[in-house]
Amino acid sequence: MNRRKFLQSSALFSGAFALSPLELAAIPRPQASLRSPEKARNIIFMISDGMSLGTLTMSDLYSRNILGKTSHWISLYEDRKVSRALMSTASASSIVTDSAAASSAFGGGIRVKNGVLNTGPNGEKYLPIWQQFKENGKKAGCVTTVTITHATPAGFCVNSEKRNAEPAIAEMYAELGMDVMMGGGDEFFNPEKREDRKDLYSVYRQKGYQVIQDASGLENLNRNQKTLGVFSTGALPYSIDRANMNELKNTPTLADMTKAAISQMKDHPQGFVLQVEGGKVDWSAHANDVAALIHDQLAFDEAVKTVIDFAERDGNTLVIITTDHGNANPGTIYGPDATQNFNSIADYKYTNEYLLNKIHADFNLQQVKDWIYEGNSIRLTDDEARQILGFYTGIEKEDGLYNYKKLPFKLYSEIQKKHNSVGWISMDHSGDYVEVAAYGPGSQLLKPFVKNTELHDLMLHAAQIPQKQKKIS
Amino acid sequence: MNRRKFLQSSALFSGAFALSPLELAAIPRPQASLRSPEKARNIIFMISDGMSLGTLTMSDLYSRNILGKTSHWISLYEDRKVSRALMSTASASSIVTDSAAASSAFGGGIRVKNGVLNTGPNGEKYLPIWQQFKENGKKAGCVTTVTITHATPAGFCVNSEKRNAEPAIAEMYAELGMDVMMGGGDEFFNPEKREDRKDLYSVYRQKGYQVIQDASGLENLNRNQKTLGVFSTGALPYSIDRANMNELKNTPTLADMTKAAISQMKDHPQGFVLQVEGGKVDWSAHANDVAALIHDQLAFDEAVKTVIDFAERDGNTLVIITTDHGNANPGTIYGPDATQNFNSIADYKYTNEYLLNKIHADFNLQQVKDWIYEGNSIRLTDDEARQILGFYTGIEKEDGLYNYKKLPFKLYSEIQKKHNSVGWISMDHSGDYVEVAAYGPGSQLLKPFVKNTELHDLMLHAAQIPQKQKKIS
Repeated sequence: MNRRKFLQSSALFSGAFALSPLELAAIPRPQASLRSPEKARNIIFMISDGMSLGTLTMSDLYSRNILGKTSHWISLYEDRKVSRALMSTASASSIVTDSAAASSAFGGGIRVKNGVLNTGPNGEKYLPIWQQFKENGKKAGCVTTVTITHATPAGFCVNSEKRNAEPAIAEMYAELGMDVMMGGGDEFFNPEKREDRKDLYSVYRQKGYQVIQDASGLENLNRNQKTLGVFSTGALPYSIDRANMNELKNTPTLADMTKAAISQMKDHPQGFVLQVEGGKVDWSAHANDVAALIHDQLAFDEAVKTVIDFAERDGNTLVIITTDHGNANPGTIYGPDATQNFNSIADYKYTNEYLLNKIHADFNLQQVKDWIYEGNSIRLTDDEARQILGFYTGIEKEDGLYNYKKLPFKLYSEIQKKHNSVGWISMDHSGDYVEVAAYGPGSQLLKPFVKNTELHDLMLHAAQIPQKQKKIS
Repeated sequence: MNRRKFLQSSALFSGAFALSPLELAAIPRPQASLRSPEKARNIIFMISDGMSLGTLTMSDLYSRNILGKTSHWISLYEDRKVSRALMSTASASSIVTDSAAASSAFGGGIRVKNGVLNTGPNGEKYLPIWQQFKENGKKAGCVTTVTITHATPAGFCVNSEKRNAEPAIAEMYAELGMDVMMGGGDEFFNPEKREDRKDLYSVYRQKGYQVIQDASGLENLNRNQKTLGVFSTGALPYSIDRANMNELKNTPTLADMTKAAISQMKDHPQGFVLQVEGGKVDWSAHANDVAALIHDQLAFDEAVKTVIDFAERDGNTLVIITTDHGNANPGTIYGPDATQNFNSIADYKYTNEYLLNKIHADFNLQQVKDWIYEGNSIRLTDDEARQILGFYTGIEKEDGLYNYKKLPFKLYSEIQKKHNSVGWISMDHSGDYVEVAAYGPGSQLLKPFVKNTELHDLMLHAAQIPQKQKKIS
């Protein structure tokens, strides 16, 4: 359908004669919802965490080259369904934000220092936007592929001086009565895994929540109950690993959780607000793992389709699709084999984390080479295999966020680069301006260039909810 | 003025009450020229060559942090003056284009293989768009900061199986009677520098051209004569070097050339078309030289102001502002000192090319350290100074496009990165989708996602000129 529409609209540009002014005027304009000032009853805020423009580009390119279709995100542009902006993502403390300050910009409407959630330099607190929507009668929820207590969902819901206070944040959601919260993080709910041995699942159940812990639980949700879904000890698996390992199939996809969350809240008379986070896009970028990155971005893209399908039917839903910051600025690099190198990523079966975790100090060089070939169809040289093995025999080591096991992510990514023509500027966030797309009522409020905090104000105005005093204590 | 407008429009989002539907409807929409189907009498096509999104971001950030003002490009977004698109820049042979294929996409309306100008795989030729506009009575010209015979201007004017046939391309422009051509490239016009000893300046003069060779020549141009301006043997100097070295002051800026070119052609009854290229943005990215990059992007940004000021007064001018492809995906990297590190680029006085060219094999370590401190306020360690010196004493060497002298660009950029928090994915073009902005009549034709070839068709349709058969032989 995109293909046909695309061809039809391309036809406008390929005729043998110039268009008359009347014909020009007939060229399709953005759809009515972009222009009309209806009130947004529902808001769905989608964040592909840590998505540099190169990530969006490569996922669309992969989708076209390997899957034979345009990504849903880019299709929204081709079909002229959304308004767009570039967004500055800086925090109060830096031109390059972390996810806590970034979520606070959306969630609290203010720029705070990196590392904190809706909290000012002197401990003052700012009202998290999902609390304000709940006060106004709406249901509110979050779904994510990382822990549900992670910075991005937390920034819409709670105040905390430390983003990593995840055990406490898990308690706060219950106190706030959030309507649907789904993601990973059993370690912060399960009494056997929490340091304080509190059984948060019992707490949630006492408050009337249904608690589900695997994908099949999504099938039988009670529409009249609040929902907590926790599907993994920590973050959910990477999409590429989930696709290729049967033991991971019982965790839901982001689109699965998104669909269930919408279904749980959509019939509420006062409407709902939902945050949808593709959290492992960020983690893949931190690991410089291009296959993980593309597959998690495409999983996010499936959630985009789920959301837009709903919003198109519903007609009263503002959808914002964006990221909180760039990460590692990945991109394809010029060279005679750039296209076939990039397309070879389709042969990758596992994340680099899974691949590198399976190597042990007692492997010999041939075992390393065989395993890498099995996972990535890449033939290592002896020297490359030796370098990798050095990390397991204690000669070399590598640090990095989310690299708890000191795996040689950077080294291996440098090796992959020779074969896939994808490079990275670092293993951390970048300060690039980022892409924002908005659909539905309120999307006409989006200016072509915005600060991240302006999306906070935009949500309230789209829903026609008065901006309360942002500072609450 | 941008600041005030920005504050005014921000005020829309900060009121204490929700906006009524009527108030929402009153929010400023893109200006009339975006919607109205007037015919574009003039077209100015602006290309910041090799501009990744990170380059646009960093130039705006530098402008805000150091110069205290928003860049002109981003101001166009804040003021809602333009329509925008993301653009795919691929060529016929690769997901990552070179500048010749990229310019052919705009210029010939077809994707060709990397390295050729408007020429198909079997030698077939496609009509360059500036020729078509000239056939339709318009004046046509190009201005650039690299050689005027380089791929980007050439792709709008000529056919050539080799982009580097610059001596021949210099002859073609005269045969075609291009109206204003300005940039570098004396080596391709001067009989003492051409291999065939042809005196092209005489050829141009015989055809009625005025020939100028320094910035002061721009002051006294005859409005009724065609113009050839060649201001340098090869490319023009980098903007940062020009700003800091008196001996380079007699070369014009891109904005100077742009202003003169517009002035030469604006009164032509049938209108004009002009390509404006910031060519050394690409070269800076190839050199991973962040100060050169930012200053040349800001020089391009000054040309944007020159062009938009004219177009606003004129009312009949379509302006397209874009790039032909990404290059090196530079970006700022997360860390405790990211902001002050980035801002320290304001202390850089010279390009890395100038800095590294001044180092010689007989320097001692202290001399290397003193010179780098003089140029960049960076204190090298002994080890870093030793590594750099290794390139001059023949121990190390480095290749790369435009790195004719095998200078240690990459090594030095890695050293700078520790001090300025800017990283790069490579020293070559990237396949990222890129930013397009369009102003004036015809800008409403810009779809939010386009292939580079669609801008060719858009220009013709905006000017209401029939698309001839693209293939001409």
